[in-house]
Amino acid sequence: MSVAPAPAARALQLFALGGLPAVEPGDDLGALIGDAIDAAALGLYAGDVVIVCQKIVSKAEGRIVRLSEVDPSPRAREFASSFDKDPALIELALREATEVLRMQGGHLITATGKGVVAANSGIDRSNQSRRGQVTLLPLDADRSAEALREALAARFGTAPAVIVTDTFGRPWRLGQIDFAIGAAGLRVLDDHLGRADWSGRRLEHTVIAVADQLAAAAGLLMGKAGGVPAVLLRGYAYSAGTETAGDLLRPREQDLFR
Amino acid sequence: MSVAPAPAARALQLFALGGLPAVEPGDDLGALIGDAIDAAALGLYAGDVVIVCQKIVSKAEGRIVRLSEVDPSPRAREFASSFDKDPALIELALREATEVLRMQGGHLITATGKGVVAANSGIDRSNQSRRGQVTLLPLDADRSAEALREALAARFGTAPAVIVTDTFGRPWRLGQIDFAIGAAGLRVLDDHLGRADWSGRRLEHTVIAVADQLAAAAGLLMGKAGGVPAVLLRGYAYSAGTETAGDLLRPREQDLFR
Repeated sequence: MSVAPAPAARALQLFALGGLPAVEPGDDLGALIGDAIDAAALGLYAGDVVIVCQKIVSKAEGRIVRLSEVDPSPRAREFASSFDKDPALIELALREATEVLRMQGGHLITATGKGVVAANSGIDRSNQSRRGQVTLLPLDADRSAEALREALAARFGTAPAVIVTDTFGRPWRLGQIDFAIGAAGLRVLDDHLGRADWSGRRLEHTVIAVADQLAAAAGLLMGKAGGVPAVLLRGYAYSAGTETAGDLLRPREQDLFR
Repeated sequence: MSVAPAPAARALQLFALGGLPAVEPGDDLGALIGDAIDAAALGLYAGDVVIVCQKIVSKAEGRIVRLSEVDPSPRAREFASSFDKDPALIELALREATEVLRMQGGHLITATGKGVVAANSGIDRSNQSRRGQVTLLPLDADRSAEALREALAARFGTAPAVIVTDTFGRPWRLGQIDFAIGAAGLRVLDDHLGRADWSGRRLEHTVIAVADQLAAAAGLLMGKAGGVPAVLLRGYAYSAGTETAGDLLRPREQDLFR
């Protein structure tokens, strides 16, 4: 099965996939998303991108922890008490972290897994069906994306590109936007090096983080309070490929801001 | 004239506004964008967002410099020669900078104007109609956005939200995405604090950088080589407001990564 990129897009459409039931550990996410696509009578076509938020992926994969069952270390207790944070949450974030970038001013910024940088290791307290529970990031969101891609391909006969997103803050700028933490079926970085630009000049150095732009676009419909955990995007001529969201991570030694 | 937010969006549409002539200093950007909206037979409706790239704004505003007319300082010459850069470009970037965040490893990361952080002060060499020329960021992209909003309101009878975008790299992640450097007519930060989430729980702290997400979404259609300098986005229920893109900038003293 191959994804045939659509011709150069002049228009994009994004459809909210709402109405999913509360996701529980072990749920078949492919079936739930497929049902939502059917319920919206959208069909699934070559070139479509399916974008799902981290929360439902983590829940389906059982990446849920009850805070009352976490025993905070002295380090977590000290940091938490200094800044009026939950010591169990800080403890979990430290356990999930492979690197602590900043732990000051009430902020705990870490890298996890393959190197995604996020506050509190991406641990999320909102949208929990039960109080006192949090979700951790998927163990391998690229694999989660690939599994969803395969499930949707089996059901609809065409394989969409799939992106798993999460909402993070950024240096230098206020507010959060959505980023790709998992991806399957597309080139996450679209390299414009060497293509001619509008004026026929060679472009010098433009690599677009396509998967992050797709994530941010979907984030417009996924507003936290909107009950929209997934989005179908149609009309974007992405390049098919086997890159993963891990390819979006800047190698530590090339990073000027760690 | 007021913008009436649409009901909660379940679908978004983004339309490429292409076919603009090469923009020259003094051109009437409102007329050019208005013509492109007419040519695409899109009309302009309450709740629409018009998103334009920095380059055509800078060109219309005459923010163009011929590199051969720039006399590099010794500091610019030294940095440029160490990393095989154009000394005139480095000189211009240093002149535009209000703060140098990093100047190492061939990278010059600065803050300009109100505090937008970008490589080389956002100076852009691609898509120039004449070789050896570069564009600087607009002097006040928020004012540029407001002027375009007023021009389109006068022509179409309804005022769109307007965003001016530019394409920047990010810490921690590879590739570039589009950000809002100017905005008019909307709340650029949509504060979800205190709203109930899907499960009825109060959200704790989620402020979405809506203008940046709109910019990134439009960036999907603005691919550098695509000849699409502007995008019309329809169906997003933004909150009307008088914030500017300056409100997206994290105050220096709150920034852990400078």
